[in-house]
Amino acid sequence: MSWQKLDELCVKLEGLGHAEAILDADEAIFMPVGGGDKRAEAMAVLAGIHHETATAPEVADWIAAAEREIDSEAQRLALAEFGRVYRNMTCLPTAFVRRQTETRTKSMQVWREARPRGDWTFFRPVLEEVVRLTREEAAMRAEILGLAPYDALMEQYDPGNRVADIDPVFERLRAFLTDFLPEALEAQKRRLASRALRPLKGTFPVENQTALGVEMARALGFDFDHGRLDVSHHPFTGGVPTDIRMTTRYRTDAFLPSLMAVLHETGHAQYEQGLPKTGAHWPNARARGMAMHESQSLFNEMQIARSPEFWAWGLAILRKHMGIELADWTVDDVIAHVNLVEKGLIRVDADEVTYPLHVILRYEIEKALLAGEIEVRDIPEIWDDKMTASLGLSTIDDAVNGPMQDVHWSGGSFGYFPSYTLGAMMAAQQRAALQRDLPDIGEDMKKGDFSRINAWRAEKIWSQGSNRSTPELMVFATGEPLRAEYFESHLKARYGG
Amino acid sequence: MSWQKLDELCVKLEGLGHAEAILDADEAIFMPVGGGDKRAEAMAVLAGIHHETATAPEVADWIAAAEREIDSEAQRLALAEFGRVYRNMTCLPTAFVRRQTETRTKSMQVWREARPRGDWTFFRPVLEEVVRLTREEAAMRAEILGLAPYDALMEQYDPGNRVADIDPVFERLRAFLTDFLPEALEAQKRRLASRALRPLKGTFPVENQTALGVEMARALGFDFDHGRLDVSHHPFTGGVPTDIRMTTRYRTDAFLPSLMAVLHETGHAQYEQGLPKTGAHWPNARARGMAMHESQSLFNEMQIARSPEFWAWGLAILRKHMGIELADWTVDDVIAHVNLVEKGLIRVDADEVTYPLHVILRYEIEKALLAGEIEVRDIPEIWDDKMTASLGLSTIDDAVNGPMQDVHWSGGSFGYFPSYTLGAMMAAQQRAALQRDLPDIGEDMKKGDFSRINAWRAEKIWSQGSNRSTPELMVFATGEPLRAEYFESHLKARYGG
Repeated sequence: MSWQKLDELCVKLEGLGHAEAILDADEAIFMPVGGGDKRAEAMAVLAGIHHETATAPEVADWIAAAEREIDSEAQRLALAEFGRVYRNMTCLPTAFVRRQTETRTKSMQVWREARPRGDWTFFRPVLEEVVRLTREEAAMRAEILGLAPYDALMEQYDPGNRVADIDPVFERLRAFLTDFLPEALEAQKRRLASRALRPLKGTFPVENQTALGVEMARALGFDFDHGRLDVSHHPFTGGVPTDIRMTTRYRTDAFLPSLMAVLHETGHAQYEQGLPKTGAHWPNARARGMAMHESQSLFNEMQIARSPEFWAWGLAILRKHMGIELADWTVDDVIAHVNLVEKGLIRVDADEVTYPLHVILRYEIEKALLAGEIEVRDIPEIWDDKMTASLGLSTIDDAVNGPMQDVHWSGGSFGYFPSYTLGAMMAAQQRAALQRDLPDIGEDMKKGDFSRINAWRAEKIWSQGSNRSTPELMVFATGEPLRAEYFESHLKARYGG
Repeated sequence: MSWQKLDELCVKLEGLGHAEAILDADEAIFMPVGGGDKRAEAMAVLAGIHHETATAPEVADWIAAAEREIDSEAQRLALAEFGRVYRNMTCLPTAFVRRQTETRTKSMQVWREARPRGDWTFFRPVLEEVVRLTREEAAMRAEILGLAPYDALMEQYDPGNRVADIDPVFERLRAFLTDFLPEALEAQKRRLASRALRPLKGTFPVENQTALGVEMARALGFDFDHGRLDVSHHPFTGGVPTDIRMTTRYRTDAFLPSLMAVLHETGHAQYEQGLPKTGAHWPNARARGMAMHESQSLFNEMQIARSPEFWAWGLAILRKHMGIELADWTVDDVIAHVNLVEKGLIRVDADEVTYPLHVILRYEIEKALLAGEIEVRDIPEIWDDKMTASLGLSTIDDAVNGPMQDVHWSGGSFGYFPSYTLGAMMAAQQRAALQRDLPDIGEDMKKGDFSRINAWRAEKIWSQGSNRSTPELMVFATGEPLRAEYFESHLKARYGG
């Protein structure tokens, strides 16, 4: 039985993936400094076995044979996603992948060395090589998947997302934000003039911050029987659905950055913990993709944890753990801090209003690079033009705060950037749909009761695994395709004049 | 080149072993309760791939061909140990191993259920099945390895250890201890009459105990760049040589048990961290075996950390971390605590003097069971006879404190018990050899300087990996085969009248 063979293969691949996920998290959280070389060797061994097992040629025959054995819709869905993953994994020749891996490794090393001194000239040649190989990759993927090249790259991260659908949405959003940003800054200025931002001074012990993060993550729905909260250099969510490894980092002079990271990562974690339990070893039981994943973390962070309803409940929790420093704070004081809008050069430091402008800039440059309309040497000037146009900030001769700030391109990840802003828009649209279905849901938040919210998200998104493409899942969850309006309304309500 | 194939195979097996070791440690230290089922599946997948890779039939051909390619002593040693491991791994048919694994899993479940209520009648049938299969296993191993059945079992844990050598050593030790124990207890009584045991009362915060353990482990030689100290239900040393995961457990009403566990595990860790770095992926770069490993942990615990020389340095460290509670304590006060001798029914709670009697009892019963001289149904009575003879304590109708106390037999580990006491004896003999080579080494300990001690152990044992059998390594390290006299002299000097 070919079905049986595939099922056993899925068990094996799940086991290997489990090992890789836990070891990855362990490396970032627990591994001592001297453990790195042997760990890298072990990870390479696992990755080799994983890839060899997943892409074995006979698997193609099993898939074809299993298609004739199917006798349920559940099997059809599982097999369809298995086939999609297999096609995406096998569309590049092994020799090409090896060459690409070597180039990316070298490129990452050069980037790490050149970035601190903003040495674009040193970085450029290796980035040119990465782009050349990515163009080749996109062409090969496009050929086999029957997609346009940039679509074929996005397909790895968000199956079903297409330039033809995203372009108008991003174009509209960019136009909106260009008008809206000055308005939002003006409104903020007026608000802060009438009620000044209260300085958040104090020393906040790590134990207290940890207890605060744990209590809020638990309240939001993080299941600590199937996960942990630890510390790492950059916050992330790793591990496996039954054993999530979520992290944050602490500064004793500020607690909001750490707390917001915890609430953001909790969204990723809830998605993973809420995935289907039956047939969990098949790929259609996995999370849909990067944009949908980001929509879950941003749902927590932007739609819940930066709202006045949340802080109506959360302020008491904050006081309980942060003590006397916040005794006379109001919800408005906290909101002023968490929703501060500021123009800046760095994407990862950007707020909810300016962040999409950073993403759209990269999306436009990526697309043009892949299409051969521009070359790597053109990037600094184009970057500067776009930053000046969107945020009024120049980055000419400032590569470290310009095109060298992100790890993505040096690591060969093209087609990934849109996921961030698509996720933010999807979260806003999900929030609006939730509001339609449960009009009094804001009252739940004010009481710190997230059970109905989570039940809705579980039904509409988490339990659906990868049975649908990203756009299909949005229609299933919200009743309509992705539209920029919901995100715009959300920004207007929160930051408008 | 067959050598090249074996070398690549060693890299692969090392990577898989690395993953299994870190995941094992993670499970005991960090994994949340709900992560167990999927973790077990992942571990089974890794174990399956590991076993399949390690025992592939073509490997036998590579070994044979590589023997003709050897052109150095280093290669000869590596290949010899590789062949030994391969023979030990392949001497049981796959179907038999599967049957044995199922039986052991069932037996462990029954033991866990029956043990708390001491239900020997419930446990007996499944233990009989385990013993029956172990007799089969021993016969098969014996046939292929050309050894006696019990020797073939011990060969898995301590290559080269033979009943013919151990029997006279254990017989002599048992006779010695039977005479010596009353004398030691009498001497202790006299000492405590003239200087009463000072009650160790107080509350010792976990942070202080951790800082104490870390400082002493580091001083002894634990390399925290290549390892960590964490908490688990039972202390253990896991991980890999470049990334050791050592654990202890804490009670806030007592610090000595935790500290002693840390110093014990530090010995295991130092052995692993001191193994050969060149060719570290070959099996002859691994630790020699269970008895040698235990000799390293007991060297730390018994030969160093329970000596007055150690506490001449250690008392100040103790005071620093445990504070005012110990302000007026002397070395003698600490020594009285760490070297207390007491008769008891439970092996794992036993002290240095009585522990070997527990082990020899099990060794004698195991051997007789394997030889078919006794049956499982005879165990409770024999156990009671031997406990009465050696410690004057009866266990009849008390299986929970008698033959059901250990996990080993229910898990199918026969031939392992001798390692504990052989390790204690080896440590004493190593300590005597060290004293011959460096007569003033006690002065180093008094200063908390363990560098010459560790250099000696590194040269004589750690760096030797598995290039020699256990008895050969003892001769290499100490100049003579294992003799009971050194351990006896050690006990007489420490506990005698």
